[in-house]
Amino acid sequence: MRASQTLLATLRETPADAEVISHQLMLRAGMIRKLASGLYNWLPLGNRVLKKVERIIREEMDRAGALEVLMPVTQPIELWEETGRAVQYGPELLRFSDRHGRPFVLGPTHEEVITDLARNELQSYKQLPVNFYQVQTKFRDEIRPRFGVMRSREFIMKDAYSFHIDHASLEQTYQVMFDTYCRIFTRLGLNFRPVQADTGSIGGTGSHEFHVLADSGEDDIAFSDTSDYAANVEMAEALAPSQARAAASQARQSVATPTQTLCEEVAELLGVTLTQVVKSVAVVAPVPVDADTLKANPKALPGQRFFLLLLRADHELNEIKASKLDGLKDMRLATSEEIQAALSCVPGFIGPVGVSADVTVIADRTAAAMSDFICGANRVGEHLSGVNFGRDLPEPIVADIRNVVAGDPSPCGKGTLAIKRGIEVGHIFQLGQKYSAALGASVLGEGGKPQVMTMGCYGIGVTRAVASAIEQNYDDKGIIWPDAIAPYQIALVPMNWQKSQRIQTEATALYEQLKAAGYDVLLDDRNERPGVKFSDMELIGIPHRLVMGEKGLDAGTIEYKGRRDTESRDIALDELMAFLGESVKA
Amino acid sequence: MRASQTLLATLRETPADAEVISHQLMLRAGMIRKLASGLYNWLPLGNRVLKKVERIIREEMDRAGALEVLMPVTQPIELWEETGRAVQYGPELLRFSDRHGRPFVLGPTHEEVITDLARNELQSYKQLPVNFYQVQTKFRDEIRPRFGVMRSREFIMKDAYSFHIDHASLEQTYQVMFDTYCRIFTRLGLNFRPVQADTGSIGGTGSHEFHVLADSGEDDIAFSDTSDYAANVEMAEALAPSQARAAASQARQSVATPTQTLCEEVAELLGVTLTQVVKSVAVVAPVPVDADTLKANPKALPGQRFFLLLLRADHELNEIKASKLDGLKDMRLATSEEIQAALSCVPGFIGPVGVSADVTVIADRTAAAMSDFICGANRVGEHLSGVNFGRDLPEPIVADIRNVVAGDPSPCGKGTLAIKRGIEVGHIFQLGQKYSAALGASVLGEGGKPQVMTMGCYGIGVTRAVASAIEQNYDDKGIIWPDAIAPYQIALVPMNWQKSQRIQTEATALYEQLKAAGYDVLLDDRNERPGVKFSDMELIGIPHRLVMGEKGLDAGTIEYKGRRDTESRDIALDELMAFLGESVKA
Repeated sequence: MRASQTLLATLRETPADAEVISHQLMLRAGMIRKLASGLYNWLPLGNRVLKKVERIIREEMDRAGALEVLMPVTQPIELWEETGRAVQYGPELLRFSDRHGRPFVLGPTHEEVITDLARNELQSYKQLPVNFYQVQTKFRDEIRPRFGVMRSREFIMKDAYSFHIDHASLEQTYQVMFDTYCRIFTRLGLNFRPVQADTGSIGGTGSHEFHVLADSGEDDIAFSDTSDYAANVEMAEALAPSQARAAASQARQSVATPTQTLCEEVAELLGVTLTQVVKSVAVVAPVPVDADTLKANPKALPGQRFFLLLLRADHELNEIKASKLDGLKDMRLATSEEIQAALSCVPGFIGPVGVSADVTVIADRTAAAMSDFICGANRVGEHLSGVNFGRDLPEPIVADIRNVVAGDPSPCGKGTLAIKRGIEVGHIFQLGQKYSAALGASVLGEGGKPQVMTMGCYGIGVTRAVASAIEQNYDDKGIIWPDAIAPYQIALVPMNWQKSQRIQTEATALYEQLKAAGYDVLLDDRNERPGVKFSDMELIGIPHRLVMGEKGLDAGTIEYKGRRDTESRDIALDELMAFLGESVKA
Repeated sequence: MRASQTLLATLRETPADAEVISHQLMLRAGMIRKLASGLYNWLPLGNRVLKKVERIIREEMDRAGALEVLMPVTQPIELWEETGRAVQYGPELLRFSDRHGRPFVLGPTHEEVITDLARNELQSYKQLPVNFYQVQTKFRDEIRPRFGVMRSREFIMKDAYSFHIDHASLEQTYQVMFDTYCRIFTRLGLNFRPVQADTGSIGGTGSHEFHVLADSGEDDIAFSDTSDYAANVEMAEALAPSQARAAASQARQSVATPTQTLCEEVAELLGVTLTQVVKSVAVVAPVPVDADTLKANPKALPGQRFFLLLLRADHELNEIKASKLDGLKDMRLATSEEIQAALSCVPGFIGPVGVSADVTVIADRTAAAMSDFICGANRVGEHLSGVNFGRDLPEPIVADIRNVVAGDPSPCGKGTLAIKRGIEVGHIFQLGQKYSAALGASVLGEGGKPQVMTMGCYGIGVTRAVASAIEQNYDDKGIIWPDAIAPYQIALVPMNWQKSQRIQTEATALYEQLKAAGYDVLLDDRNERPGVKFSDMELIGIPHRLVMGEKGLDAGTIEYKGRRDTESRDIALDELMAFLGESVKA
């Protein structure tokens, strides 16, 4: 492409309302323009990147045997009522009515539509497994769209949905998709990690998120420093300390802490570190009415149970982990009144010593391994020191109920954990039968009986992937595209183009030669100063730059500079094609 | 692709609610499935065709120097208010509000968005001309969606918008787009005609529709039988007869037509053909109040003027042509009361003889060349025969006010007109400044002064083009795809696949060889009878079929049948690749 024939809408100033670097650089490089809150036009330069990302995704999905389809953006709400998500999805699900008053939604995802299609089109286990995918526009009515295309309202997803006769088949396809996603993100040139994710409320059985590592990420990812292990911080298991609990060496004492209600304040007052203090988190969880009680009294109301969750004071409670423990389903923090009723004390001074049998004490694995620790005394203005399990209070129930921290041993058994921030660009999920059961999507099994299909789903945020590539690859001059998704791989900048017939002839010949060799080349034939051209090419992030000048031509050379290079270098013209063959990645 | 690995969802029965052949065959071949009224899922087979059509369109738009962009499906209604189309567009414009109550539309087209983008991004005439295009989902809330994807609510358009400093530049790009559209539809393998179209209410200055010729088309297209001339029937000029009016030879007579109110009845009664009868169409048009009158009486109401439009009785009035004549703007048919008041007669017996000076008589060119004709007498139960202009009534105003008919001389001067039906799949349009003026889209001109840009727009109905290809290419067995857009170019059907190891080996080897040579091949490895496989391959319209059997292998041959062939023939295996190279079009 000749620069004079396209729209290079670069901006010198950083737009005021762009918070993250990818948003700033996409605006400055002329990749996108805002149409309205959370709605963006993709300009020619941005669209080129988008289409390259889409092409790589399609090639790899096809290679994996997935079948491309296209489902409408607009969906009848009836399907969402069948699965219950018309209510569950909340206000991000945009609803509207057509001219006849029939209700529709703008699809934020397509589980309902594909499962409806599958229940109509698939009749036999012989047609399974099958994996359908599409690259389609989605709409999610974010309350506060931000970060440009990273969290926009209208966006492009690659979503795929697989159907299986049983869970074993799902696991096979899940593994194929795991490998395919690794191939895709590798080909996109991204530094990414697949991480174990919580299956949350969707209720499936297995899930991985694919995160692009970048400081601006919204998620914390825990990694082993020696193995492939990676997980969302919420998901990573916190192992018990390798060393057993030390024996008690101190007598229990009461210490006055008149105004010290925070662990940090207590530690400071006593001149100890937080690792010697135990934090007690009071929570309550509902106790369902059992069958016998209900028989005797049909109007019996569910009760509730009071828990003290013990953590080393520098650790954080992981509510997802805690909620999965027996009796803690649907738990919540206790109110001051509930604390007063259970412990006869106010928050800030509570602890596990001497509590009644109605209070269940659960200690995190690390807290359970502490001895001679400090905790609240259940009396206002007072803490206890030198406390020991088994002596001053019963041995607690022990469980993993905290977030991992950097330096924890990796749960895979190898190495220790580091924590980095990541941007979620992909998510694969073993859905199980949630949607197929709700919509009655069955096929005839081998025995001739109807059998509800098992499903997987696999998403990539296509527009978000573009932004994430920038978050990971930029410098103070602008974007640094991975070769595979750069809008142009090579910028050819001729010096003195307007005046030199020789340069025009030679640069045009080289431009045609590079194009014929299959490269995406931007020939900067604009009537601009070299400085403007150089800074534009750097801002828009073209990974390879060639500068043609008359002196070089005389010497039979051309100047080359990789976008990450600090210095340029001269390449002999007759070696240029071989050099580029080595330097430019497909 | 192996047939066992994709979704071949063919149906034996013709779905009851599919009215046109393309809709029937797209359902039967398993290309699409209805999700809701006017909303369709594209199954793998249909999606393959869709993506091939999109790719050809993109290649040709890129070749023409157009720049691909992507604009949101959802658009803020404010832009539509700026151009006045929020009101004008009517109920096909789907409106909705987001969670904050802000009003949006689902874009049926993108003139507003692109013009808004252009007013922000284009500053100078030096950046012009520029032509932006996208391939994007559109939504039009049709009151009665029908014919499958031919007239659906959600559909895919390729829409392009060009910006120019003046009309001369627009005309250049318009010509490039005209040529590009011819290339696109030729590559798609369609029998099409570009036809002159009425610019209608959009108010531009030049317009062509691209029609795929098919009996099921909704538009009548007039063609020259010897030249390239083609126009919408409404647009084609009806020339004056080549022979001058004959001299009067009959005396005028009154004839009794007691119950004959229709021209056909009068002609039958008098034993003449319709070509001797003149039909008088009574219309009225408003007369604006002139400035002087308005000065004297600011409350003066517009008046109206009464016209008799004369046509040879076998011709039809063309209201678009008539409305463009002086005084006939916003004309409508006169009511019985208005006819009574102007002519003192009831409809069915009216005519141009002896009318008052308040009645303006305009004759179509053909009617004006008639002599000794028959017309109404303006007396109930009576017509006149032997009527002649200049003798029995004044010479009328003469104008082209009728639709052309087959056999008319072509307005291009060469040949005579034929009329066929067409499906509109493309439309190119010289918009002028309608949108750029409304939205204030200006650039600095050569003299440094702001200048409103001139625009063109260029659309192709992508999903509709797929259906139109079927309307033009089918037989009683199913679809017959043009090679370039067939879901697969070659069907390879091995006989006895399940049982013969030799066939499996040889067919798989040939399948791989064909794929390696760049062909899209469907290997029918399903456990089905040959008859089922043959009829499926014919129904889904694969243009080239190879049948491999053991007898053929023994003889070193394979059976080939083109989808339009009546007989199959044996091709020597060692000549197969050369044969396909000749037969399969890229």
